[in-house]
Amino acid sequence: MINKNLIENLFKNDRRSIARIISIVESDNLLTSEYLREIYSKTGNAYRIGITGPPGAGKSTITNQLTKYFLSDNKKVGIIAVDPTSPFTGGALLGDRVRMTDIGTNDNVFIRSMATRGSLGGLSKKAVDAADVLDAAGFDIIIFETVGVGQSELDIAQTADTTIVVLVPESGDSVQAMKAGLMEIADFFVLNKSDRPGAHQAFTALQTILLIKDRDENSWRPDIIKTIASENTGIEEIAKEIERHKLYMKDKNLFIVKRENQAKTRIKEIVENKLKDELWSETGEKSLNTSLQKVVLGNLSPYHIAEKIIQDFKDRI
Amino acid sequence: MINKNLIENLFKNDRRSIARIISIVESDNLLTSEYLREIYSKTGNAYRIGITGPPGAGKSTITNQLTKYFLSDNKKVGIIAVDPTSPFTGGALLGDRVRMTDIGTNDNVFIRSMATRGSLGGLSKKAVDAADVLDAAGFDIIIFETVGVGQSELDIAQTADTTIVVLVPESGDSVQAMKAGLMEIADFFVLNKSDRPGAHQAFTALQTILLIKDRDENSWRPDIIKTIASENTGIEEIAKEIERHKLYMKDKNLFIVKRENQAKTRIKEIVENKLKDELWSETGEKSLNTSLQKVVLGNLSPYHIAEKIIQDFKDRI
Repeated sequence: MINKNLIENLFKNDRRSIARIISIVESDNLLTSEYLREIYSKTGNAYRIGITGPPGAGKSTITNQLTKYFLSDNKKVGIIAVDPTSPFTGGALLGDRVRMTDIGTNDNVFIRSMATRGSLGGLSKKAVDAADVLDAAGFDIIIFETVGVGQSELDIAQTADTTIVVLVPESGDSVQAMKAGLMEIADFFVLNKSDRPGAHQAFTALQTILLIKDRDENSWRPDIIKTIASENTGIEEIAKEIERHKLYMKDKNLFIVKRENQAKTRIKEIVENKLKDELWSETGEKSLNTSLQKVVLGNLSPYHIAEKIIQDFKDRI
Repeated sequence: MINKNLIENLFKNDRRSIARIISIVESDNLLTSEYLREIYSKTGNAYRIGITGPPGAGKSTITNQLTKYFLSDNKKVGIIAVDPTSPFTGGALLGDRVRMTDIGTNDNVFIRSMATRGSLGGLSKKAVDAADVLDAAGFDIIIFETVGVGQSELDIAQTADTTIVVLVPESGDSVQAMKAGLMEIADFFVLNKSDRPGAHQAFTALQTILLIKDRDENSWRPDIIKTIASENTGIEEIAKEIERHKLYMKDKNLFIVKRENQAKTRIKEIVENKLKDELWSETGEKSLNTSLQKVVLGNLSPYHIAEKIIQDFKDRI
């Protein structure tokens, strides 16, 4: 049973209720969809910004500075930081600690960190669900901060209304970014740490790539904003570029297309997750386990077993 | 229709047939399972080694040197290199080029690179399918080389009979590896570039973590092998440690457990992929598209639509 009180308090931007509902949503049990359904009509008002890029590019710093900028504009900001808990990116804990002392105590900011460990499959769904909760709670802006090293993180970035790819001068990031398809998802680029050696070359390289890519005169041209986020240089320019992109999207009536794609991805994920649950219910697991011996003993291929399980499933539902 | 000739030639270790069947398997069409079924009875003879670790740890170099070692022992070696096409790991192309001149021209070596881009979901399935093809073609040893930064790569590593985690002295990798659960999948560790500053401390740190972890006297204790792969130092020790692990597994009758888990994961993946295909067939996509407008217009939540689609699906099958 869902707790109607909790939902009422969520709509009043009550922090404890927000936290509890996000936890319920994250735990992904039967109540998840009940809650999400209940709050759905109150969503759709927040503007969603995705910030992605390599580890160490300064995404957290940019998120923090941008948040302060929005706060000064009387906006409520929700942050969903997806920590891929990759063995080798590190730094997440430190970044979180800095963040907490910096903006974490502000009443108009709500920060939620999500780890990918052990839940990679459903992560983009969970992040978007959490964003819906923040949206329903009345936050004006929601920032998804993700490390752009996996498909899942890219998926999340793509659910945003405006997606920013943060790069740094070193290590030929721009070429790598292009190869990885980040060029397709970036609404604009931020070249952070732009006081470092090589910044000018990096900027030119990126610019060249962008020029090659965009030939249609009417289409949106991703710009490159130079920043030194740690010194708060270029943050206002980021905010303005977000605004410019937002206006362009509205002007061209492109939000409806974006929302349709978002909804499609979302529905697919919900459907697949539900079917998986039914598939591997007690009966399904049992049918799998009894068949396993035959595979291990080499009598039947996994493909034969799989077909039998599918048949069983079809007979069952 | 499957090409029986192709399969006959595969069993004779014909390179062109191997390449073609792997391509068919990778493309993941209706023929995929037909081919895999057909070759299944010839699989199960190759020993599968997983090599994972952070970018730049020297996995390619270790794979190459280890391959040369196995070749000198008259073994046929298949290599499946999974390149996560992450925007920021880079280096994959260079590594591949070095590899090709080094071992790629040897008749007893077959190398296949797989990119994760756009296919992350099914990647571990595809890698294991490709391994089955190499297995059926008569390769004695199959090496999966993956960058350990995503769940998918870890999944692949786990399908191996022996999994090796490669670390380097810098950047506190051992602690990160523990946090990320690599400790659970490593059958042993390789501390590469062990002539670098900090190697001794890294070794001690890793050793300490291992001591804390393993309390059961009878259970397998992951060892740490120090290497300088670029100078071929420690490669024989890796090969010996693989052998020691293999004997331990045989001795304790643990392969059957491992194979059962592998088969289980595999079957689940096949079943889920098949159902997904049926789900989003022409009818499914149509039902989704007609419902989309309602979500975008805000009449219905994605959860309502999802339920309708599931009901339609159940009625259909």
